[in-house]
Amino acid sequence: MLTPGFKIGHAIDDQLLSGVTVLLPDEPATASCHVMGGAPGTRETDLLAPEQLVQRVDAIVLSGGSAFGLDAASGVQAWLRERQRGFIVGDHRIPIVPAAILFDLNNGGDKDWGRYPPYRDLGYQACESARPDSPEGSIGAGLGATTVRARGGLGIATQRMADGIEVTAVAVCNAVGSVFVGDTDHFRAAPFEQDAEFGGRGLPDPLPANASDIVTKGAGNALMNTTLVVLLTNASLDSAECKRMAINAHDGFARAIYPVHTPTDGDIVFALSSNLIKLENTAVKSMHLYTIAANCVTRAIARGVYKANL
Amino acid sequence: MLTPGFKIGHAIDDQLLSGVTVLLPDEPATASCHVMGGAPGTRETDLLAPEQLVQRVDAIVLSGGSAFGLDAASGVQAWLRERQRGFIVGDHRIPIVPAAILFDLNNGGDKDWGRYPPYRDLGYQACESARPDSPEGSIGAGLGATTVRARGGLGIATQRMADGIEVTAVAVCNAVGSVFVGDTDHFRAAPFEQDAEFGGRGLPDPLPANASDIVTKGAGNALMNTTLVVLLTNASLDSAECKRMAINAHDGFARAIYPVHTPTDGDIVFALSSNLIKLENTAVKSMHLYTIAANCVTRAIARGVYKANL
Repeated sequence: MLTPGFKIGHAIDDQLLSGVTVLLPDEPATASCHVMGGAPGTRETDLLAPEQLVQRVDAIVLSGGSAFGLDAASGVQAWLRERQRGFIVGDHRIPIVPAAILFDLNNGGDKDWGRYPPYRDLGYQACESARPDSPEGSIGAGLGATTVRARGGLGIATQRMADGIEVTAVAVCNAVGSVFVGDTDHFRAAPFEQDAEFGGRGLPDPLPANASDIVTKGAGNALMNTTLVVLLTNASLDSAECKRMAINAHDGFARAIYPVHTPTDGDIVFALSSNLIKLENTAVKSMHLYTIAANCVTRAIARGVYKANL
Repeated sequence: MLTPGFKIGHAIDDQLLSGVTVLLPDEPATASCHVMGGAPGTRETDLLAPEQLVQRVDAIVLSGGSAFGLDAASGVQAWLRERQRGFIVGDHRIPIVPAAILFDLNNGGDKDWGRYPPYRDLGYQACESARPDSPEGSIGAGLGATTVRARGGLGIATQRMADGIEVTAVAVCNAVGSVFVGDTDHFRAAPFEQDAEFGGRGLPDPLPANASDIVTKGAGNALMNTTLVVLLTNASLDSAECKRMAINAHDGFARAIYPVHTPTDGDIVFALSSNLIKLENTAVKSMHLYTIAANCVTRAIARGVYKANL
């Protein structure tokens, strides 16, 4: 179940072996983002800098298809425009739809799509299916995702804080690196696991000698890359606070994947607030929120891979 | 032992319970930096952006003293100027000395220094002591450092790659968070430990139930903060590549400290290259260097705390 105020939708194409995931806030959400990968593929992320005019977004799109998948945002724009949603400029409504892609072109799907790729229609379809909860694993943008020694996938993790504040991480893991400790099947994320949500395997004891060996997909051509994350919270955050949460939440990548944030990963975190609950934004309180956000990222990454391989 | 091409020096004041550490490249080093903490205290970091004019630095300074400690860079400038080292502008030599500080004002030392703080002289003295190796623990900028349940300190970790390329991380850990797993004495960094360099304790088995509990120094006032890192490599990197390495190396913080990169930490990585060995900069090869840099950061953080508490 997502944090209140947001819906999630997916569309896939089995032949293409790829898909699209859309996050739709019920009302325009304050937002920002932070890129830490060396090879990002993005759209409408410059406007998410806290000093820019537009402070709220109508949707966030995650897509397979590498740079071709950025078309998915056009489909989401069209769906929103039909519903007269968007940033108001005179008589116009401009849907604000930042997007990011992952690289799944070499995953065995049929990418021979003719002149235009199918992602625009997939984006539109994903909106049609949006609801407050979602299956996980091989779905949406995670359908064709891969990692070292296991399928990649889409995972979701939510944590509720004492005062009704919640944070959800939606992660699509298609990393160059591995989510496991060395050659074991123990998730690096284990110290952050709740209720055996990714198998309850704990950490390996003793640690394997190869725990810090660098193992990646596609030796010599580590290009099947990228982990995408969207954070959702009902705590009131402005764009600058969303930026801070997005930066902090990248720690969740480092605890779940090794190596990560590499030159060939497009790792990004979007952070959105539905502003439903006032956060008394002392440094300490926001520190807890941002730390829990990072933990949800760690858990969602492990969940995505775990669910895709059941 | 540092990576070839660099020296390290320290100066401390026992009454002040604080100190300064300086990194001196033998020749001006290409450099950049990346901040991920929410409360940085820095000097001359804007010029380290890859698009700026100056591409090389004459020294990097790490200091206690919060913003007062930025004076340490003035002492290092004076020492370099006496040796006619610096960026050439007409008849002048301008020593380029980026610096960053940590917060140790509440650590029990005597901070009643009168009009001007002592950090400028400490910076000068640190240069006088510079050599290719250094003790670790409660030394230099790490003298007055603290963490949850243990003294903080300065640690050093080096790794050599197959082709003679080396990377060293010098870390001063004074984090808001903890380097241990829950309430155990097992370092979070354990999967990256080499040759029992921080006690060989491994990870706790089973994981304690409080492994993801958020425990910080100074409840309600988590301001005794910041972990500072300088990366040194002999591989040829331009300023943009140093920036990429600095970004990637922040993963080392996430694997060694929890929570980290908080709104009240000034966490920063400086990355310097002595350009002694040509790096064939394929994405894959640089990925290995940057990943190993992150691992050295993880190890150096644990080493610093371990050595300070022996």
